[in-house]
Amino acid sequence: MPLEYKFKAKPYDEALKSALQAFPRKAVYELVPVSEALGRRIAEDAYAPFDIPRKNIAFYDGYAVRHEDTRGATASNPVKLRVVGSVLKDGEELGLRVEEGEAVYLSANSPLPEGADAVVREELTSKQGDHVLVKKEVELYEDVVLRGEDARKGDVLISRGSVIRPQDQVLLLEIGLTRVKVYREPMIGIASVGDELLERFMKGTSYPDNYFFLVSSTLRLVGCRTASLGILRDDPDEIAGFISKNISYYDALALIGGASRGLRDYTGMSVEKIGEVIFHATTLSPGKVSGVCRVDGKPVFLVPGHIGSATSCICNIIIPIISKIYFEGAELLPKVLAKLTTFIESRPGLYTFRTVSLEWCNDGLRATPHLKRLGGSTLITILSKAGGFILIPPGVKLSSGELVEVTLLNPLEVFSWKSH
Amino acid sequence: MPLEYKFKAKPYDEALKSALQAFPRKAVYELVPVSEALGRRIAEDAYAPFDIPRKNIAFYDGYAVRHEDTRGATASNPVKLRVVGSVLKDGEELGLRVEEGEAVYLSANSPLPEGADAVVREELTSKQGDHVLVKKEVELYEDVVLRGEDARKGDVLISRGSVIRPQDQVLLLEIGLTRVKVYREPMIGIASVGDELLERFMKGTSYPDNYFFLVSSTLRLVGCRTASLGILRDDPDEIAGFISKNISYYDALALIGGASRGLRDYTGMSVEKIGEVIFHATTLSPGKVSGVCRVDGKPVFLVPGHIGSATSCICNIIIPIISKIYFEGAELLPKVLAKLTTFIESRPGLYTFRTVSLEWCNDGLRATPHLKRLGGSTLITILSKAGGFILIPPGVKLSSGELVEVTLLNPLEVFSWKSH
Repeated sequence: MPLEYKFKAKPYDEALKSALQAFPRKAVYELVPVSEALGRRIAEDAYAPFDIPRKNIAFYDGYAVRHEDTRGATASNPVKLRVVGSVLKDGEELGLRVEEGEAVYLSANSPLPEGADAVVREELTSKQGDHVLVKKEVELYEDVVLRGEDARKGDVLISRGSVIRPQDQVLLLEIGLTRVKVYREPMIGIASVGDELLERFMKGTSYPDNYFFLVSSTLRLVGCRTASLGILRDDPDEIAGFISKNISYYDALALIGGASRGLRDYTGMSVEKIGEVIFHATTLSPGKVSGVCRVDGKPVFLVPGHIGSATSCICNIIIPIISKIYFEGAELLPKVLAKLTTFIESRPGLYTFRTVSLEWCNDGLRATPHLKRLGGSTLITILSKAGGFILIPPGVKLSSGELVEVTLLNPLEVFSWKSH
Repeated sequence: MPLEYKFKAKPYDEALKSALQAFPRKAVYELVPVSEALGRRIAEDAYAPFDIPRKNIAFYDGYAVRHEDTRGATASNPVKLRVVGSVLKDGEELGLRVEEGEAVYLSANSPLPEGADAVVREELTSKQGDHVLVKKEVELYEDVVLRGEDARKGDVLISRGSVIRPQDQVLLLEIGLTRVKVYREPMIGIASVGDELLERFMKGTSYPDNYFFLVSSTLRLVGCRTASLGILRDDPDEIAGFISKNISYYDALALIGGASRGLRDYTGMSVEKIGEVIFHATTLSPGKVSGVCRVDGKPVFLVPGHIGSATSCICNIIIPIISKIYFEGAELLPKVLAKLTTFIESRPGLYTFRTVSLEWCNDGLRATPHLKRLGGSTLITILSKAGGFILIPPGVKLSSGELVEVTLLNPLEVFSWKSH
């Protein structure tokens, strides 16, 4: 072997810890219009700046009354009140007041006029000229939503790190925010390494570096931007030069392939020339030859070139590190609990990454591990059948029927959840 | 009341059925590069065009051998084979052949040379000049992935209607597809209706029509494109004119507000001048005054102007209809099964839309219905606390502890699922 480069598998937990420690948090914030914030992660708690609702409001269309004026009212013996005005659309204040024996017509969500302390629904009344007949006694605050009943001034409405959904956009605008502080999406540069990829490209294969999409699309779905930086030769100088030239333009780089023990795997030794290898090779299976390096204070990820190990590296190494640095540790991949359908255990001494199919059954969510041999091209269809994964620490056995935490491979996995 | 317009609540199941019948399927297809297909819905089954893997391949780095040559091999009594070549990278064919007493070094995923029928992992061997010592007997096809073991030619790999995930992009490229047939995203024009919205806009409220985002963002998340068409006055001629002018440019229109029984609610009667009201008002609660109309063969949705009823209308009326017309009936909103934490029932005679919070607990997923009064502005924070909904048909009671189907309000809901 022509390599001087040393390959020593660090235990995965220590490896990840050392990598997390190697990079301080440096989330960058952006203030974006709420109208463009869908799917972004909010970078601060959103508080209620006032009580919600701001005033006592009607829950139904009907009449604002003083509840004591309705005492004893029934269908056969209604109470007659004088209608002194109406509030037709929500939020409109007309300076109206309800005195003894009076009522004001109002639509749902309208603020109660001063003096009123209950609402009689329209269907419990009938109109009679300028008067209304109330056919039912109402209690204090009946069909009234009290000021602050929904949220009190100062309540946290949306907490830091949450992904902004449609209803959150509405809520933010409703409390008067038109711009919201979100995490800037880190920009990850991705290149594939391998003479054989270039050869295939020459032969006409459009995307010989197709695992690029595994890394790129997964990272995009969890809040990153990505750039395809092409294919590099199996040449330590070319790889080192590439990293040096590009690291300043990206928040992180990912190199796919060329990270193994093979005769032509050079990424680790390339980085040693220009930065620091935090770890290269770890007790993660598949994903053993994953690596994390630091160049100019930024991460350079070494992603194994097989699809199973690449997936494991993305989920178990890249995403946690990106989360710490750029999202203040928010969990970027959704997690569920599911009942295991079979016994599984870790491979001896290894943190074992097992993909599972997820299926909703009579007893809830079931996870069926893919027991087919992992690694290599066998995973190409397995990954499409998978919805999530379990990472089993060394020495751990999981029983059939046990409820285990499954991490989704990406948030699009939910779209496969159909009617039952 | 100055209205001649007739308001008659159609039972929700009939109303939805009549609306679905009113519009034939007219999905439009696009052929997009696989590289840009992330998150799109595939419009045809993707088949394996060949066996996967295409040849017998090695599962591990090691030596391709004839299994009978290893008979009796042990660590203390290894079998010595002559190494006649090596296959270093996956997929490379070098015309090698393994004869009796021979072996070929190969890396994982490489095709077995002719004559070989098993693989001895590298760690079970040691090199000795031009020879290799095999320390373990291997069986026929040991550590070999057989041609077609992963998928047979003709197997459906990704089925029609699925959302394309990162691993699907890789799989599609792997089987030689660089373009994929997906459903064109229908373009939905959305306008809000209400003089009071215009007034608020004049007073400086940036987004008085903030419920636009509820409709727009939810539809975008399930595969539509949307356009904001502004705010319309409460004027039947203006509304009718708007629909006539715009219907040809969009696949559907949605009008938010102005659909109720109020004195100034004109959308239904406006459509009657230029098209057909399939139904307006239904036994859906909240969402009673929802409507579906047909103008020039396209749907015009009447969306109630309160947030709870608007959400109900989007989920229970708009999305199913959009799905039928433009996505061949694919389920656009993800569904889960969850254990109810309390008894709930429908409101008398009404399909009752109940939002629920979803939480992962020791016994799986739990759904806690929001028992707070629905409708009106009280839902503003409730919707942010909600993750999904249950639609309870009239007369149905659901018990605490029962496993019920919950539809997510949108696919981003999964991002709130954290570690347990």
